[in-house]
Amino acid sequence: MRLNLQTDFALRTLMHLAVNTDRRVTIADISETFGISKNHLMKVAQALGQEGIIATERGRTGGLSLARRASDIRVGDVVRRMEGNAALVECFPGGAGGCRISPACRLRGALADALEAFFASLDTWSIADLVGGNAPLHDLLAMGETA
Amino acid sequence: MRLNLQTDFALRTLMHLAVNTDRRVTIADISETFGISKNHLMKVAQALGQEGIIATERGRTGGLSLARRASDIRVGDVVRRMEGNAALVECFPGGAGGCRISPACRLRGALADALEAFFASLDTWSIADLVGGNAPLHDLLAMGETA
Repeated sequence: MRLNLQTDFALRTLMHLAVNTDRRVTIADISETFGISKNHLMKVAQALGQEGIIATERGRTGGLSLARRASDIRVGDVVRRMEGNAALVECFPGGAGGCRISPACRLRGALADALEAFFASLDTWSIADLVGGNAPLHDLLAMGETA
Repeated sequence: MRLNLQTDFALRTLMHLAVNTDRRVTIADISETFGISKNHLMKVAQALGQEGIIATERGRTGGLSLARRASDIRVGDVVRRMEGNAALVECFPGGAGGCRISPACRLRGALADALEAFFASLDTWSIADLVGGNAPLHDLLAMGETA
């Protein structure tokens, strides 16, 4: 079981933006910090923009910024949105379907409840909780060091 | 986010065995029921055997059976064992590693807690809970119908 890379990269992007609220942050900056391809990050930024989690400005002076306060962005909500229809098993919405026992299977409900417990646990964290008072993280994400 | 196919197939195998406790069940039976390749199922059976969840007997009269009562096999435990080192993100044990902020990242702990909440939710279910009193499931998995 693993998260989509897009979800992982989205969370790193949000932490980066939450640390560097006073700086212009570009795709290139985030790419350099984490060693993630710009192409991949552009798709992530587009998805986060569509979900209203970040604001994107184009052009030479453009960049990315949080569209809401970091304390108002719940980690579970981000993961839920980025994972979209990623089906835990094939009988889930978005899955391939075709399991013979689907009409009578209690496992689907059990897995759906477990997934909700996963998201609910993550919802106890905001992006602000991840970065607030975390000096080592601020050092690692400081823009001066990535230039 | 999705479970490994191996985990999915393991859970279906266990339900099949729990329904047909009074019959000899072979890899071929399970393969036919679910339309899953025998090769794939052999690996699943081997893993379940190594974990002490099922007993496997070889040869012409061989077959698979539950090594414990269905009520003593927790779904969360099965998923935990079958997923093994599947890393939710790259900084997890078994992951590729290499994320720059790992030393200061609080997200790893938040994700680990959420994963535990996922397993704990599944642990409220036993294999017996999935099949007990579930006549439609018993009909779908009845061996006579798969011959």
